[in-house]
Amino acid sequence: MAVTVVGSVALDSLETPFGTRERALGGAATHFSLAASFFTEVHVVGVVGEDFGKDDLAVFSDRRIGTDDLQRIEGARSFHWSGRYEDDMAVAQTLATELNVFAEFDPQLSEAARRASTLFLGNIQPDLQRRVREQSDARLSGLDSMNYWIESARDSLVDAIGRVDVVSLNDAEVRMLIGEPNLARASRALLELGPDVALVKQGPYGAVMYTGDDFFSIPAYPLETVVDPTGAGDSFAGGFFGFLDSLGEESPSRNALRCAAVYGSVLGSFVVEDFGTERVQRLTRREIDGRFTEFGEIMSLEAP
Amino acid sequence: MAVTVVGSVALDSLETPFGTRERALGGAATHFSLAASFFTEVHVVGVVGEDFGKDDLAVFSDRRIGTDDLQRIEGARSFHWSGRYEDDMAVAQTLATELNVFAEFDPQLSEAARRASTLFLGNIQPDLQRRVREQSDARLSGLDSMNYWIESARDSLVDAIGRVDVVSLNDAEVRMLIGEPNLARASRALLELGPDVALVKQGPYGAVMYTGDDFFSIPAYPLETVVDPTGAGDSFAGGFFGFLDSLGEESPSRNALRCAAVYGSVLGSFVVEDFGTERVQRLTRREIDGRFTEFGEIMSLEAP
Repeated sequence: MAVTVVGSVALDSLETPFGTRERALGGAATHFSLAASFFTEVHVVGVVGEDFGKDDLAVFSDRRIGTDDLQRIEGARSFHWSGRYEDDMAVAQTLATELNVFAEFDPQLSEAARRASTLFLGNIQPDLQRRVREQSDARLSGLDSMNYWIESARDSLVDAIGRVDVVSLNDAEVRMLIGEPNLARASRALLELGPDVALVKQGPYGAVMYTGDDFFSIPAYPLETVVDPTGAGDSFAGGFFGFLDSLGEESPSRNALRCAAVYGSVLGSFVVEDFGTERVQRLTRREIDGRFTEFGEIMSLEAP
Repeated sequence: MAVTVVGSVALDSLETPFGTRERALGGAATHFSLAASFFTEVHVVGVVGEDFGKDDLAVFSDRRIGTDDLQRIEGARSFHWSGRYEDDMAVAQTLATELNVFAEFDPQLSEAARRASTLFLGNIQPDLQRRVREQSDARLSGLDSMNYWIESARDSLVDAIGRVDVVSLNDAEVRMLIGEPNLARASRALLELGPDVALVKQGPYGAVMYTGDDFFSIPAYPLETVVDPTGAGDSFAGGFFGFLDSLGEESPSRNALRCAAVYGSVLGSFVVEDFGTERVQRLTRREIDGRFTEFGEIMSLEAP
């Protein structure tokens, strides 16, 4: 069992009411990889520049994440995102986005990355997502995207969505892609594009999951301190796909999908407790399972 | 067992993408009463004008809701609210608010209304809420409020909150009242004002419930058609207090509170399926219990 993830490996400059970080390890593929690595083997496919240091690489190797597909380009700089969160932590204000090496990213998967049983296509240009999907032998695949691609490459994105099993978007993106304000209708229409599962993230309100015959609501964990919301969605996806991959099932059961979504929410709830990858770097599987149990209690109901 | 509810009984003029209604029966106490009446006896305390017709009154008497405390003032008009919802159904745009008879509302409870085991103080001026609380012998009490009173009568509202067992507000109101953007912290601080239970409504995302030692997340039912969101919060409260009152317990258990919150969400999910009170007028207890079971399935999780 293994998961291959394709996407950004970045250096993030972050500013929140709790402090700042300069060029801290971040990016969708980074957060996904770390979350998934608690459950299964991971191959990260990405590109970095010469400013990407040994300490950054060690974050992957410490968790046994394969970096053979992480290309390092000398004389160039890594993708850099700079953002600020205000008091309510709801929306990141982007201060700067420097694509650098990421602008020419055209991933070619190694043999090991191709053979992984699960593939996750992080938020990159939808035609690239499709080309990576074509290189992979994965039996379970998923993708994430964002409003930018919905606006600028909608047809390509719809095509890419039709080639994966699981689509992971936030509620505003689902409404925007489908052009339907009612989330239940929009999510059903999203499934009609091809995927078997729609994971709809709702930020501080949790998430919902639609499949052909199931609807599941995943609570948000009641965190009293959110230090840095960056990476919550990618960690959610990492927990979801990492757990599913570890089961090794051809076709996951209804309860397996539900457990995967809760593990996703667990990972998303941990990553925001500190800056960048700091909390997940010191996270243990025991803590993950403890919070999974807490989620079960938060949702537990007996008939009266 | 009986619930007394104090609040607005109104005629609402509504405009949504699904149509319009002119001077349809509405108001917080109306929606609360109808929802609670599926579980227990209800006394509605309010005031109406001579434009309040026999058909309007029949909506209460058809469901055995006591109207001895519903004062009718000749030569005056009922509270009238006029609002419009746009496509996303998220926020009502108020077109007109005519207080009319409601401006002089100073409720005096009848003996039967005083003796009810449960009291709900709908969204009215907080000093009035306190004066009604003082007239009642209820062993379980709750209140609702809104941003207007948080801004204009915060001290009175804090005093009123300190005199009830359950406070029901939406998430934005809790943050605003406490002055704390983190909802978990704000909800804990709300409990420190006195109540044992904080019911925090989150509109289309469901609700959360905080008690001294429990946290419970209530999903939103995935409705594909929301015709008119008016009354959802009041129906939620009606289902919650109606169910709790029907148990007749001195001190409801953790699971009883959770079931009450789900019954609240069930009632809230029905009322929005049609204009005003129309859906709830033709609702059956069998439908309510069917949807309660569906909520249980939406939240159900077995350990992997």
